[in-house]
Amino acid sequence: MRTLLHNARLLTMNETFDEHLCGWIVVEDAHIAAMGDGPVPDMHKAADEIIDVNGDLIMPGMVNTHCHMPMTLFRGLGEDVDDRLYRYILPLEKEAITPDVVRVGSNLAALEMMLGGVTTVADMYWFEQHVGRALDAAGMRGVVGQTLADFDPPDHNTFHEGFGLVDDLREEFRHHDRISASIAPHAPYSTGPKVMERVGQYAADHPDVKIQMHLAEMKSELAWCEKNHQMRPVALADKAGILRSGAIMAHCLELTPEEIEVMAERKIGVAHNARSNAKAGRGIAPVEAMRESGLPVGLASDGPMSGNTLDLFSQLAPASMFAKLLGQSRACLPARDVVQMATIEGARVLGLADKIGSIEQAKHADLIRVSLDAPRMNPIFDIYAALVFSASPSDVLDVMIDGQWVVTDRRSQTLEHQKVLGDARQVTEQFKKKISRIDTIS
Amino acid sequence: MRTLLHNARLLTMNETFDEHLCGWIVVEDAHIAAMGDGPVPDMHKAADEIIDVNGDLIMPGMVNTHCHMPMTLFRGLGEDVDDRLYRYILPLEKEAITPDVVRVGSNLAALEMMLGGVTTVADMYWFEQHVGRALDAAGMRGVVGQTLADFDPPDHNTFHEGFGLVDDLREEFRHHDRISASIAPHAPYSTGPKVMERVGQYAADHPDVKIQMHLAEMKSELAWCEKNHQMRPVALADKAGILRSGAIMAHCLELTPEEIEVMAERKIGVAHNARSNAKAGRGIAPVEAMRESGLPVGLASDGPMSGNTLDLFSQLAPASMFAKLLGQSRACLPARDVVQMATIEGARVLGLADKIGSIEQAKHADLIRVSLDAPRMNPIFDIYAALVFSASPSDVLDVMIDGQWVVTDRRSQTLEHQKVLGDARQVTEQFKKKISRIDTIS
Repeated sequence: MRTLLHNARLLTMNETFDEHLCGWIVVEDAHIAAMGDGPVPDMHKAADEIIDVNGDLIMPGMVNTHCHMPMTLFRGLGEDVDDRLYRYILPLEKEAITPDVVRVGSNLAALEMMLGGVTTVADMYWFEQHVGRALDAAGMRGVVGQTLADFDPPDHNTFHEGFGLVDDLREEFRHHDRISASIAPHAPYSTGPKVMERVGQYAADHPDVKIQMHLAEMKSELAWCEKNHQMRPVALADKAGILRSGAIMAHCLELTPEEIEVMAERKIGVAHNARSNAKAGRGIAPVEAMRESGLPVGLASDGPMSGNTLDLFSQLAPASMFAKLLGQSRACLPARDVVQMATIEGARVLGLADKIGSIEQAKHADLIRVSLDAPRMNPIFDIYAALVFSASPSDVLDVMIDGQWVVTDRRSQTLEHQKVLGDARQVTEQFKKKISRIDTIS
Repeated sequence: MRTLLHNARLLTMNETFDEHLCGWIVVEDAHIAAMGDGPVPDMHKAADEIIDVNGDLIMPGMVNTHCHMPMTLFRGLGEDVDDRLYRYILPLEKEAITPDVVRVGSNLAALEMMLGGVTTVADMYWFEQHVGRALDAAGMRGVVGQTLADFDPPDHNTFHEGFGLVDDLREEFRHHDRISASIAPHAPYSTGPKVMERVGQYAADHPDVKIQMHLAEMKSELAWCEKNHQMRPVALADKAGILRSGAIMAHCLELTPEEIEVMAERKIGVAHNARSNAKAGRGIAPVEAMRESGLPVGLASDGPMSGNTLDLFSQLAPASMFAKLLGQSRACLPARDVVQMATIEGARVLGLADKIGSIEQAKHADLIRVSLDAPRMNPIFDIYAALVFSASPSDVLDVMIDGQWVVTDRRSQTLEHQKVLGDARQVTEQFKKKISRIDTIS
């Protein structure tokens, strides 16, 4: 199968940030076979599908480096409530999360992300096998992490059971093209150093299994580590051997310059949850300092109960604005860097930069087509600024993942929009009854 | 003309924040004649137009309390450049801004705002008469402020000429239903106290003319006031008599608690430019402290060269997140307060709260219909959170201003979308030549 896309404004996000104002791409099966600017060479004109994209933007699909997909079902619950984690999330998760609920929430998340231009996601949750299956069916790319924690989660009573779930996940996806299994200790304070050590060993024994974890996210975590181990979170994680090359650490707000150096030396990747951190009133992660040290930093939605939306258009402007506030200058974290973080740098965080994240020959064809037609996008003096500060997820017209059209003309081709919404509403009606009971008790 | 809208999720934004899950409204000519929840009473069923809104949200049109509409034509120019004001804006404005350019930029701004759910705007720019005419033709509501400044602006060489332009503006719109004239000294440092005094006197002589000004926006303004007048900006403005009841002050970042009290006593209104302030790296305005003192604070886009977009959906999440960062708590500036600021509180800032800003009987019919169908909007545990953290300007389906449909099915009924974009692109092509000359010289 050969597809030719032409008459495109092409943002490659390659190393030299090449932009083609009258670009074309040839996709052959799952890969980008050829690309260029100007008239399409004759040799590329024979294709099964020829699409004039009418001057719209074609750019790499976005990479969401940290998510809890099934939590779409809790979106907006306990909004603006400081103790919402213990008041709502943990009791509800314990009582309500089943494989079927995970499937329903994952479908809603996948639909939202694809419509909003996200083609790859790193997720961590309970019953993660079912998240992987939902991503597979939706046609998305993902790194799916089975979460391990000591707070009596819905899918394992002991860490022994938890590691068993990781084994199952690995078994199911070990030969999958788009989905890979990952192991996700929740956080230093919710696994303790012993389990972190065991996770480090698991990752050493299974090099195909990446580690994902929340790290240095908040002051209470610092206090826990200090009280119980007289260490800061990064030192505790490092001592446990979990800061392995390729591990994905989410949040990373509370870092000293020395800790940033340690993380850079360990060659880990960082998932920056701009909106989620700010919404919690926790602060602004030192993104520029991390990137200057050589740490790749990707953008991330976090779970929808924290960051609400799962597309990355919602994260672009906040990421830039927060960095400018932190650095007290308009020049901090310019628009192009933010788009880089949402695409190729996010791919680096997930260890996928050789496959995706930019439009380059021989890479997998994960592409999005973005309309530039909204008044708010015009005029375009700077295409990166237009994407960061003006674009919305609704501007995404078409999405291709691994050479397959999963969204065309703003409609999902792999999921039934109304059915996905209907299933989600049915589940949340059940939640509402449980919540009113929680609110009555407290 | 009578229009009945029914089967609506109705967010009234009235004093008790009434929400109707199965609401209906009757609009008679320019006004809301009746409204309610549940089955539509028989007496309201005879209407010229009956629209089933299919469960979509109907809420008040949003009020953008501070803008420089024609600057759409500079959107994205000098992005991330610290000295962009002196490097790009002022030279370009001096050379390029004409009444025709103001008209073209205003049309683009009006189109963007209406499509994004803004029904009322307070604007200040050069050749403001032409902004007023563009708003009039588009069918929008506006407070149009002729700007006065000493830095050799494109439309007046002396303040005497500037006040003449204010007279002309007032003359043109004094009997207009939707547009009212305003006088807009640029800022303390660009008019000086003498001109501020004269403006205060002008407003005293013409109670129909509101004052708009940038105030306490940045550190360099504090330094100028201190150096030249040994005062802070609020004291300088107050001494000049410009902090009159009903005046609209934009930005108000650099305020002490005592200055907030002074401003509250003077009964002014504040335009909070959340994104613009952050993008400049200037900081976060003390929104909660201002509101607690009784100052009404509306949301604002600022000019599109500063805040990029002119809809207020873009401002809702930033306003809430910045307040949470400043207050270090998830509980700061909750979602409902932010929606309030974008609607009825913005109307209070502009002195229009008796006419618009909420859906109440006898108010003018400025309404927007918002689709709740995007996956990112679902489920809805909290409609305010869905609006603040998930909605996008593209979710606006229909817009009614003063009883007239100006947008239906995401299409402008008063402006030609492609012509407006085409005109804007033509003008900006001219700018690009001038900019390349600027960049070559420097």
